[in-house]
Amino acid sequence: MTRIGVLLSGRGTNLQALLDQVHGADAEIVCVASDKEDAPGLRRAREANVQTRTFPVDSFADRDARDAAIADWLEEERVDIVVLAGYMAILSPQFIARFPDRVVNVHPSLLPAFPGMRAVEQAVEYGVRVFGVTVHLVDDGVDSGAIILQRAIELPEMSDPTEVHQLLQGIEHELLPEAVRLMARGAVSRDPANPRRLIVAP
Amino acid sequence: MTRIGVLLSGRGTNLQALLDQVHGADAEIVCVASDKEDAPGLRRAREANVQTRTFPVDSFADRDARDAAIADWLEEERVDIVVLAGYMAILSPQFIARFPDRVVNVHPSLLPAFPGMRAVEQAVEYGVRVFGVTVHLVDDGVDSGAIILQRAIELPEMSDPTEVHQLLQGIEHELLPEAVRLMARGAVSRDPANPRRLIVAP
Repeated sequence: MTRIGVLLSGRGTNLQALLDQVHGADAEIVCVASDKEDAPGLRRAREANVQTRTFPVDSFADRDARDAAIADWLEEERVDIVVLAGYMAILSPQFIARFPDRVVNVHPSLLPAFPGMRAVEQAVEYGVRVFGVTVHLVDDGVDSGAIILQRAIELPEMSDPTEVHQLLQGIEHELLPEAVRLMARGAVSRDPANPRRLIVAP
Repeated sequence: MTRIGVLLSGRGTNLQALLDQVHGADAEIVCVASDKEDAPGLRRAREANVQTRTFPVDSFADRDARDAAIADWLEEERVDIVVLAGYMAILSPQFIARFPDRVVNVHPSLLPAFPGMRAVEQAVEYGVRVFGVTVHLVDDGVDSGAIILQRAIELPEMSDPTEVHQLLQGIEHELLPEAVRLMARGAVSRDPANPRRLIVAP
């Protein structure tokens, strides 16, 4: 079965969605790492009997050394797919290079609009009418990797980022497990005519 | 009744949508101008007994002089709202300043993603799964003005810009008349808490 490693920094609701919808069925979540020792999401992993480890940056010489240690652990655990589920640190290019086209991220905007931090706040400030969620492969840029899935939601009246974020999280909890399932069964590939674009088999 | 002036450069299918859905009901299209003497859209205006005039750039000293002449004509015709319906030239800041918050444009992307020319091609090349249409007020930037309406369409499989464009044009033909109707009845205003955002009364 496809082996999944998850990185998180916060509450871990996307990890929970993966545990509920994917774990033990389409793939196995074998380990969960966090950059924060007190990330509440780690408890969800332990409750599901998934091993956890924390990699606080001040235990390492620098960010690259920390990322190398995380990558080492994921490789020891023979992880096929790395899922960023609310992981707030930027991963080094060296980390990404060790898992080419195998690191997945979920982002609360319709990329390429509003990459980076505070995406929902940015979108509300811009005054958009349509919000959305993107699940994408991670490359060296900020939220710039090839798109696996996107879903839009029209919220023309909404101007409170907290409300919008809540609605988008509901979508994240569907879209991320769906993308991981598709990757686990090998349904995601590069379009030979345009490698920037992914083909997702139905 | 609210008086509408339309600028176009091409086939004028968005003008036709306005003639069919708005003209004589919620607003009156009083004049249609084009930068191109052979724009096929001009025929649609004439068939609806709407006066037309062309402003080819080589009849004027420069672009600013041309834009000033267009603005003079629109003012003579006491136009309340200027609609860009496939108008391919960039309007001068002086033109925009003469019709503050009264120039409307329709764009085949979910702005701020993919502004400018070849928006659909850009989106296909990027590999997005969700496309869409934006109707916005025109400011000095390129497709950067405040958003009136947006509508999204999920086309996860589609990689042919022509097909995508056809589907988006169907949405443009609904969204642009809807936005013009809203503006004509004064339902669009700036959000005092964030003037970059528009409030659209239901």
